[in-house]
Amino acid sequence: MPSRSESQQRISRLQEKLLASGVQAALLLMPSDIYYFSGTRQNSVLWVPSEGPPMLLVRKSLVRARDEGMIDDIRPFPSSKELSGLLGMEGDKVGMTFDAVPVQQHLWYSKVLPCRSFTDVSMMVRELRSVKSPAEIELLRNSADKLISVFRQVPSFLKAGMCELDLAAGMEYRLRRIGHEGYVRMRAFNQELFGGMAVSGGAASYGFFDGAVTGKGLSSASPQGASLDLIRENEPVLIDFAGVFDGYIIDMTRIFVIGSLDAELLRAFERSLAIQEAVRRAMVPGAIGEEIYRQAAAMADDAGLGGYFMGMPGEQSRFVGHGVGLELDELPVLAQGFAMPLQAGQVVAVEPKFVLPGKGAIGIENTFVVTSMGGQKLTDMPDDIVVL
Amino acid sequence: MPSRSESQQRISRLQEKLLASGVQAALLLMPSDIYYFSGTRQNSVLWVPSEGPPMLLVRKSLVRARDEGMIDDIRPFPSSKELSGLLGMEGDKVGMTFDAVPVQQHLWYSKVLPCRSFTDVSMMVRELRSVKSPAEIELLRNSADKLISVFRQVPSFLKAGMCELDLAAGMEYRLRRIGHEGYVRMRAFNQELFGGMAVSGGAASYGFFDGAVTGKGLSSASPQGASLDLIRENEPVLIDFAGVFDGYIIDMTRIFVIGSLDAELLRAFERSLAIQEAVRRAMVPGAIGEEIYRQAAAMADDAGLGGYFMGMPGEQSRFVGHGVGLELDELPVLAQGFAMPLQAGQVVAVEPKFVLPGKGAIGIENTFVVTSMGGQKLTDMPDDIVVL
Repeated sequence: MPSRSESQQRISRLQEKLLASGVQAALLLMPSDIYYFSGTRQNSVLWVPSEGPPMLLVRKSLVRARDEGMIDDIRPFPSSKELSGLLGMEGDKVGMTFDAVPVQQHLWYSKVLPCRSFTDVSMMVRELRSVKSPAEIELLRNSADKLISVFRQVPSFLKAGMCELDLAAGMEYRLRRIGHEGYVRMRAFNQELFGGMAVSGGAASYGFFDGAVTGKGLSSASPQGASLDLIRENEPVLIDFAGVFDGYIIDMTRIFVIGSLDAELLRAFERSLAIQEAVRRAMVPGAIGEEIYRQAAAMADDAGLGGYFMGMPGEQSRFVGHGVGLELDELPVLAQGFAMPLQAGQVVAVEPKFVLPGKGAIGIENTFVVTSMGGQKLTDMPDDIVVL
Repeated sequence: MPSRSESQQRISRLQEKLLASGVQAALLLMPSDIYYFSGTRQNSVLWVPSEGPPMLLVRKSLVRARDEGMIDDIRPFPSSKELSGLLGMEGDKVGMTFDAVPVQQHLWYSKVLPCRSFTDVSMMVRELRSVKSPAEIELLRNSADKLISVFRQVPSFLKAGMCELDLAAGMEYRLRRIGHEGYVRMRAFNQELFGGMAVSGGAASYGFFDGAVTGKGLSSASPQGASLDLIRENEPVLIDFAGVFDGYIIDMTRIFVIGSLDAELLRAFERSLAIQEAVRRAMVPGAIGEEIYRQAAAMADDAGLGGYFMGMPGEQSRFVGHGVGLELDELPVLAQGFAMPLQAGQVVAVEPKFVLPGKGAIGIENTFVVTSMGGQKLTDMPDDIVVL
């Protein structure tokens, strides 16, 4: 959890942004936002006025929120009448994260606080959270080290003839034993993820998940990740897993093969590495996410692989990297439409991948910190294909 | 996935309800709702007019939605202009599930379809989904059998001196190997769950999760479920796990002990069984959820255990059962404030539990179908404490 001084700094930065935007307070309802600012993820609501001390109103558990929380004013969630007295001053604009808060919540607070008008501060909060402190980068590095320790064990349990599910279960079990927290938070509406992907060959690359590789999953109800398909020799086994420790999510992908891969797959892999290196060099403060993505896509085109970049034909995702932190889908995004300049301390999972129909998914993923020297790699493990 | 005829029946039932409520169409955005009606959980939007054929508009993956979907009209998600032409008829009320849809989505559709006014159909959709068909009950029974097969293995890997995390990981791994889909869908804003709870002794009973037992978890960022606390002899080991197979969630709890339990814990356990039996008998069509809860709470009071029922003092949850299906928190709820009569075919996890400070959490949970004969148990395993 954040230290008390770090929690105070985060709140001060939010208050500066609120003041600069003419928003009188933020009413934060999302657990990840509440944890980031207060140090506790209990069922609660965090009130941050643009000036003055914040207040955490707790539904459950008040005792635990007080044990863990880094702010002074932590109290039980009041009755609606009391809430109105507490927060219902006339004519003030109040920020709420409209990207994630359900309509019913918005309607309820609008009814209880009729003098208030609510405005969307999703981007403000997400941008603020995207810049990691040194302490957060240490937590991410710790997550990376733990995730890598399990990637290194893959050769001991990956066997031809096992199914994707057994491989995924082997990853999940080893991660869990060393403290993986399990639940991978995603912010985007309509997304959900369990653990990661362990997929083999070419059959598994279409689905709802907004990534290059989705996985077939086990049923149409859960159409994602590992399936019962068997892992065969001489095809790429792509393992893309998130590690979650102390709340912080790291993301990486490596390719394994039992036997060898054909020349076209190897050429695509080499192109992934070249794109990753170009993206890494470009990850300096001030760089524009969509320009980095366009450069990456052009490099795929130049190699004649544009049709297979970030998904199979007709299923391509239009990005090459995404922020990570307390959520898997943080800012910045290296994608079409993201024109905000990068900032030092942002942390981005860069994942150039190709899906070659009938052959399989191949590529690389590492998590980097944006610095003036370019991306600094947190997932400190060689990028090479691991040949068994 | 539902058969074509079952999908059609589900849509017809929704259409009847829309017509009866004067709502001209439903625009469904939640993956669980979309899967229930269409048979596919791709990133898509399901349009169900009160009369006439439904339409699925797919962002990703269109190919997979067409492979899996049980409705005829499946098309790519249109441009906003086309969407306006397609759905933007004058003056119609359109239903949306305000309980779960974010404000940004609501605002976007309100802008693209300015002639429409949106209304909340959360309860309509949730009530409809709460009544399970015979095919759904078979899926739930299958989930139960698989979950039970892992509960039966617990004596082979539960040892004194192991930590809660190792016990949880052992459950998760065995479940995953037999096809557990991993991600446990919850509908309520602010809730999240990984796998289940494997908790021992008395330290683990406060937290945000809306249940009797929360678990300490591994950090304040993920304050739920198994912790690093050691499992000791002569204390109750409570294992509360969800099984998810083919999308359908079953929920059960059993108590294990290495050694023996003291008389007060055993008395609380016997009371849990008596409450469960009273609830089971009461689970007939027409019964009222909050009355069943009040009866259960009164039975806890009569035994002098009211202060420990469904949580430790100050942390008590006010329910004794919750619906399960595609989500862990479906209707009906056996809780204060739920006055809707039960219907035959609803499926409810009944979980009377006590948390005795300093001693531990103890109780029982089984999943039952509401029938005219009372609750019919799906989790067909003896309720007894398993003594090792």
